[in-house]
Amino acid sequence: MRAYDIIEKKKNGKELKAEEIKFFIDKYTSGEMPDYQASALLMAICINGMTKFETSELTRCMLESGETIDLSDISGVKVDKHSTGGVGDKTTLIVSPIVAACGVPVAKMSGRGLGHTGGTIDKLESIPGFRASLEREEFFETIESVGFSITSQSGNIVPADKKLYALRDVTATVESIPLIASSIMSKKLAVGSDCILLDVKTGSGAFMKSFDSSIELAKTMVDIGKSNNKETIAVITNMDIPLGNAVGNSLEVIEACEILKGRGDGSLRKVCIYLAANMLYLAGKGSLSRCKEMASNSIKDGSGFYKLREMVKKQGGDTDVLENYEKFPKAKVSHLVISDRDGYINRIDAEKCGIATVVLGAGREKKDSEIDYSAGVVFNKSIGEFVKKDDVIAAVYSSNEDRCAKGKQILLSGIDISPLKLPVSPLIQARVTDEGIEKFI
Amino acid sequence: MRAYDIIEKKKNGKELKAEEIKFFIDKYTSGEMPDYQASALLMAICINGMTKFETSELTRCMLESGETIDLSDISGVKVDKHSTGGVGDKTTLIVSPIVAACGVPVAKMSGRGLGHTGGTIDKLESIPGFRASLEREEFFETIESVGFSITSQSGNIVPADKKLYALRDVTATVESIPLIASSIMSKKLAVGSDCILLDVKTGSGAFMKSFDSSIELAKTMVDIGKSNNKETIAVITNMDIPLGNAVGNSLEVIEACEILKGRGDGSLRKVCIYLAANMLYLAGKGSLSRCKEMASNSIKDGSGFYKLREMVKKQGGDTDVLENYEKFPKAKVSHLVISDRDGYINRIDAEKCGIATVVLGAGREKKDSEIDYSAGVVFNKSIGEFVKKDDVIAAVYSSNEDRCAKGKQILLSGIDISPLKLPVSPLIQARVTDEGIEKFI
Repeated sequence: MRAYDIIEKKKNGKELKAEEIKFFIDKYTSGEMPDYQASALLMAICINGMTKFETSELTRCMLESGETIDLSDISGVKVDKHSTGGVGDKTTLIVSPIVAACGVPVAKMSGRGLGHTGGTIDKLESIPGFRASLEREEFFETIESVGFSITSQSGNIVPADKKLYALRDVTATVESIPLIASSIMSKKLAVGSDCILLDVKTGSGAFMKSFDSSIELAKTMVDIGKSNNKETIAVITNMDIPLGNAVGNSLEVIEACEILKGRGDGSLRKVCIYLAANMLYLAGKGSLSRCKEMASNSIKDGSGFYKLREMVKKQGGDTDVLENYEKFPKAKVSHLVISDRDGYINRIDAEKCGIATVVLGAGREKKDSEIDYSAGVVFNKSIGEFVKKDDVIAAVYSSNEDRCAKGKQILLSGIDISPLKLPVSPLIQARVTDEGIEKFI
Repeated sequence: MRAYDIIEKKKNGKELKAEEIKFFIDKYTSGEMPDYQASALLMAICINGMTKFETSELTRCMLESGETIDLSDISGVKVDKHSTGGVGDKTTLIVSPIVAACGVPVAKMSGRGLGHTGGTIDKLESIPGFRASLEREEFFETIESVGFSITSQSGNIVPADKKLYALRDVTATVESIPLIASSIMSKKLAVGSDCILLDVKTGSGAFMKSFDSSIELAKTMVDIGKSNNKETIAVITNMDIPLGNAVGNSLEVIEACEILKGRGDGSLRKVCIYLAANMLYLAGKGSLSRCKEMASNSIKDGSGFYKLREMVKKQGGDTDVLENYEKFPKAKVSHLVISDRDGYINRIDAEKCGIATVVLGAGREKKDSEIDYSAGVVFNKSIGEFVKKDDVIAAVYSSNEDRCAKGKQILLSGIDISPLKLPVSPLIQARVTDEGIEKFI
């Protein structure tokens, strides 16, 4: 078998055989296939696509390129959750303790933020003392005793994906449904939960800009889950606007606590309850409406927040900050974002907000940039709301004046205020299971 | 400008701007753009194609990546000729002296053989003493005094093409009309003749396997010539079967001499007169039929052969061998290829014959392989001819028994003999000028 022939076959739009896909992944991971051949093949895949069979084989070969985790020693049906990445997406911090409080264990491996979207691990590390890199034993022990644990991804899970992703990132081959789906699903399968809930973000601040492509990605991932005997559900949620009122690491932890305490933004709560309910449904806890009720109750009775506090404590974090937010380190500089006119807020562009947050210091411009945990944006007003001239729309936080002014400028460029109220895309747009697609728009 | 954005644009099937194409060629040639980005872009070009404008710009940028030659000091209208590569294609050795004998100077830079097709320089170097690497001064001086000269390509003509071709060769991105056309035409334009005749080979032994793709390539190259103010004509000629009776370096020199002496294979003579006539036509020597007459006459009166002998002498070659072929070094081993049945020869596969010739030792298996100038194939019978069992179809020549047997086997696998005579594709299939396409099939 030769790399050349595999590239040529895909260039001509033909379906690759299982052994050809295996050859590609094995040889590229081992370094025997050079980058320039892999990038030519990736481009051919981007343009000509992959069949269901090829995508499933690609995922399997990537999965087999490294270590996998066996969670079978942990009792109960384990449910994993994955978000394709958004701005202000702190749902993992809210949903995991809710699900754990309902008796379903969650073993969550999360990533750090890159680009304009944040990462759960960075958010948790804004809690003084929190340890996010657990050894496997402590990870398992935390799940057993608390009901859930969140740790950063361990060294050798799907090395093929690390190498391929780095190459795709510099060769304009990121946007490809089979490549995105196999990258996500190989990691989810490697981590070993019994069921998987996928939160596919759609809109300006997401990877998938259009509803149709989000549906296609969701469907592809649900199919991969099925062909690997993991029950998988995907929900499509709106990422035209940031999720919730806070964007930035400690600011998002505070907002997560508020939701778990029964306060805070209604849209964020609604999404979190829907995600948690779907995880409980996957774990066999009853009908979706029954599961929604369970999730709501764990907010009302405080058991969700209690679980979050327990996990933070177990992983070395200072739980005081979760009660008394003033104890979080404070940003040195802040500016208010003021409306220059009367009107309805018709757009708060999620991507612009994400970029502003990175500029403010809350994200990474490069892979090894330092993060300012206190930096970010807190909105005072929501999409669709009427504001008057001189009303405060948001506050921006940073460690220096220059970044603060620049971040504010970028944020403002993504906000539209006009006299006519425009319709807002719904929050939860579709649900994809192996039985079909329910659309809510 | 970023390479990433250019790759993405072409991935999405959009037309690149002149400055984007220039950025690609400049940065790749200088080494600032890595192979893995170039190969992704090449694959996107292969699949999504290029517009006429893009192809013309690509050619111009490649041309400008290195030195160009100014032939204006040489008097007369200079006409160049290029073949896309075939098996047994010794037309340059025949056509150039014919054209020179008719008073039109030919400044020909040729390549060496690679793969299953031979190169003019290798053929000439089979003549003892022949120097194919002339300094520019001697090249010009030979053209002025003899009327034509053939030299190997000098160091820094279109360096972008050298680098790109090596990459395309290992990433399955060779077959692409804009990439092939720009590769050929950038070199032809750099060499500085006033007019260009292209011989686009079509069929099993050619790059272009189908008539339609050959027409498309021809049309693309004629358009590039026009947009660079060089009058260009392309003819499409048959490469299902080898051209002429001999394949192999000194064997082809002998066949070229035979044609110039008014003997030898009729098909080969017909193609050569047609090519020469088109070059004379481009140089303004009159109507195509008048030019055919002139070309024929230079065979009849021996002036073509005289020009070849003069050029060989001037470039240090032993002209004795051109008269007395026995003086060429002889192959150590030869086998006869015998018919095992009565019937018509309906196929002599050009590609198989080319591969057999490489195995016999006449071509290069790798870039730096040594060539056996005496190795090759001489056919005794032509396509469409009736043979009896035990008739000799051809003789194969090599330096050792093992290669000889292997080469013969491969050659035989490309020969079909059957009781029913099948039609043969015509030799000259089309002529493409900037005024239109004349098809002869």
